[in-house]
Amino acid sequence: MTKVASNLQIDSVRLWDTIHETAKFGATPKGGVRRLTLGPEDKQVRDWFRKACEATGLEVHVDALGTMFGLRKGRDMSKAPVGLGSHLDTQPTGGKFDGVLGTLAALEVVRTLNEAGIETEAPICIVNWTNEEGSRFAPATMASAAYAGDYTTDYILSRKDAAGVSVGEALDGIGYRGTEPVAQRKLGAFVELHIEQGPLLEAENKTIGVVDRGQGITWYDGTITGFESHAGTTPMPLRRDALTALSEFVLAVERTAKAHGPNAVSTVGEAVIAAPSRNVIPGEVAFTVDVRSPDTETLAAIDKDLQAAAVEIAARRKVAMTLTAIWQKPPTIFNATLVDAVEHAAEAIGYSHRRITSGAGHDACNLANVVPAAMIFVPCKDGISHNELEDATQADCTAGANVLMHTVLALAGVAS
Amino acid sequence: MTKVASNLQIDSVRLWDTIHETAKFGATPKGGVRRLTLGPEDKQVRDWFRKACEATGLEVHVDALGTMFGLRKGRDMSKAPVGLGSHLDTQPTGGKFDGVLGTLAALEVVRTLNEAGIETEAPICIVNWTNEEGSRFAPATMASAAYAGDYTTDYILSRKDAAGVSVGEALDGIGYRGTEPVAQRKLGAFVELHIEQGPLLEAENKTIGVVDRGQGITWYDGTITGFESHAGTTPMPLRRDALTALSEFVLAVERTAKAHGPNAVSTVGEAVIAAPSRNVIPGEVAFTVDVRSPDTETLAAIDKDLQAAAVEIAARRKVAMTLTAIWQKPPTIFNATLVDAVEHAAEAIGYSHRRITSGAGHDACNLANVVPAAMIFVPCKDGISHNELEDATQADCTAGANVLMHTVLALAGVAS
Repeated sequence: MTKVASNLQIDSVRLWDTIHETAKFGATPKGGVRRLTLGPEDKQVRDWFRKACEATGLEVHVDALGTMFGLRKGRDMSKAPVGLGSHLDTQPTGGKFDGVLGTLAALEVVRTLNEAGIETEAPICIVNWTNEEGSRFAPATMASAAYAGDYTTDYILSRKDAAGVSVGEALDGIGYRGTEPVAQRKLGAFVELHIEQGPLLEAENKTIGVVDRGQGITWYDGTITGFESHAGTTPMPLRRDALTALSEFVLAVERTAKAHGPNAVSTVGEAVIAAPSRNVIPGEVAFTVDVRSPDTETLAAIDKDLQAAAVEIAARRKVAMTLTAIWQKPPTIFNATLVDAVEHAAEAIGYSHRRITSGAGHDACNLANVVPAAMIFVPCKDGISHNELEDATQADCTAGANVLMHTVLALAGVAS
Repeated sequence: MTKVASNLQIDSVRLWDTIHETAKFGATPKGGVRRLTLGPEDKQVRDWFRKACEATGLEVHVDALGTMFGLRKGRDMSKAPVGLGSHLDTQPTGGKFDGVLGTLAALEVVRTLNEAGIETEAPICIVNWTNEEGSRFAPATMASAAYAGDYTTDYILSRKDAAGVSVGEALDGIGYRGTEPVAQRKLGAFVELHIEQGPLLEAENKTIGVVDRGQGITWYDGTITGFESHAGTTPMPLRRDALTALSEFVLAVERTAKAHGPNAVSTVGEAVIAAPSRNVIPGEVAFTVDVRSPDTETLAAIDKDLQAAAVEIAARRKVAMTLTAIWQKPPTIFNATLVDAVEHAAEAIGYSHRRITSGAGHDACNLANVVPAAMIFVPCKDGISHNELEDATQADCTAGANVLMHTVLALAGVAS
């Protein structure tokens, strides 16, 4: 930040207006946004974004999975651009900020630099990643995962939605299947601003979350098989009730995460009785477990505890129990230099901040596997996200965009 | 039993063959029976039953709800007949014995008395009650309940199945809407033989259950409202998880019944998460509770304990919880004289026996409210019922029919 005073600020009102302008694409009656990946509302926001990028002088490129890159030239075009951005698709009943803030703040950074006449050493490149949410097409964060080499382009193009439409067909349908091969456009770094989607910043009254880790995740599928029998005629001691066994296990899942706290979390999100009836003792249940921790060792220790709990409960209650890990994602360790840069920017501008772990998955978590990456969090009201009630203040959005701008300037360098 | 030796026996092979002959009406590949009330298979078994009754000299009458009465004249026709019987409808995947044993054993009693040339003082009347199971039309035991005055005939006739067909239409469809007003045919007593549908007799190696009580039942509907939030970003201490709250309550329901044991039972048979998702903390669940005890005071004490548990869990976990009793059926106290008669018959013939509480509802429980009534249980394999695997031995069925016969003879008296 040699030549740029840390008091260079983005235009708070322009950013706020831009967020609300795009919120009309897929606006819901309750004030949220429904903008499913590659649907007509996604095309509307993409067209808007392309025009806005071009109007601000960016060269727009679209890759084979529809990810949009808006390139701002640097003084030294031999350097890989510093990437910044997020996504513009939403959950089926999503909010106005999830993904949108990070993408439009990136645009706002470019607008601000343009107005201030600032040239960077390295180019910068703002990005709108395709299908972060994963609501219409699984998996979530598919385009950034493909960029990071987790999937082939063909695999992602062949994924289908519930109606049988493939990603490829949907891209063609809205005219966003680009010609640029996925990951051909190399980035030198990637910084993503996002709402926290959790309650910690708000609870501690901090403005900026300096994200240093992303949680590792293990997903389990489980079943319990007891014996279905008559609720009126089966004495308590002779029962093999799958639901009481599950209840003990649900509480064991909760207890285990707490025991490995404070950063571990675990959740039984689905639990289904096979043939539920008011007067029948449940004979079979299926359930899921979601376990997260920023530490690989903690995930392994929780796994051990949960498997032991399952064995103990099954033996004592004379039921059969399975608990199978169906997906494991290692923790993300964000690049220390970039994390320091975010922290330094927040500190220099004078925002309160804390280190924080990302509980959710993000495009930046995928990017972190192939380029130096970091994230910036700002508070959201009551930690609510993936919900039409999702909300954030103009001041916090502005703060996040300012930290994003100064982090990018530090990484790209200001041309002398 | 002045003139009839207690060694008068029913024809074991004939009873067994009869049970298996009727099992072909609605036979399932797995050896069970699917004979839904007032459907084509129910018509088949009813036609068969009518012919068998007429062949054995009974006068068959059908009431306005399709209940079939087969009257065997007594010496003194001024006396109200002694009723015996059960039902011939089954669960969708039911067994060969539930209801069938009691109805066909009643027929076998008549056949045996005819062959032995025995005339009773009071007439006897064998009964096939319409819709005991309640699978196609709710409520269960509807015809005996209407007989006992719990519902009007018109109310029952207007009940509809899932396809919108009313009981009245279904009766007309198979030609079993009789002309006799419901409950016009007064019975002096009613005795029902049934498989236990529970594991106690088998576990204690007893042949005859002398049923002295039917459990009272309270049905509850419940809801828990916590707060739906992101499984990755919501720290454990800030969660308001409806499913962990439910899990505690399910275990409280189990604990409470055990504490009020040994005869109380309680079951959470249904539990549904409102919008289940693997990575979302459940915000809302709905559930049911079925509580049974032979004592009114125990039902009240359990209710108090469950309400207190709900309040405590809701307060501690910061969730809202409702627990509403939607149906209450007081315990059935079977007539002491009839219960003694059953016990005396079992003792005189030399069968092992024990007093037992009926955990399930039966037509005899409804009858007990308006006439002296009793029930006889025989063991069923592993306590399994409402299942194609339902099974009972020929010896136990024979024993039950013998006890039924001698009980009825004791009640009706043998003409001198």
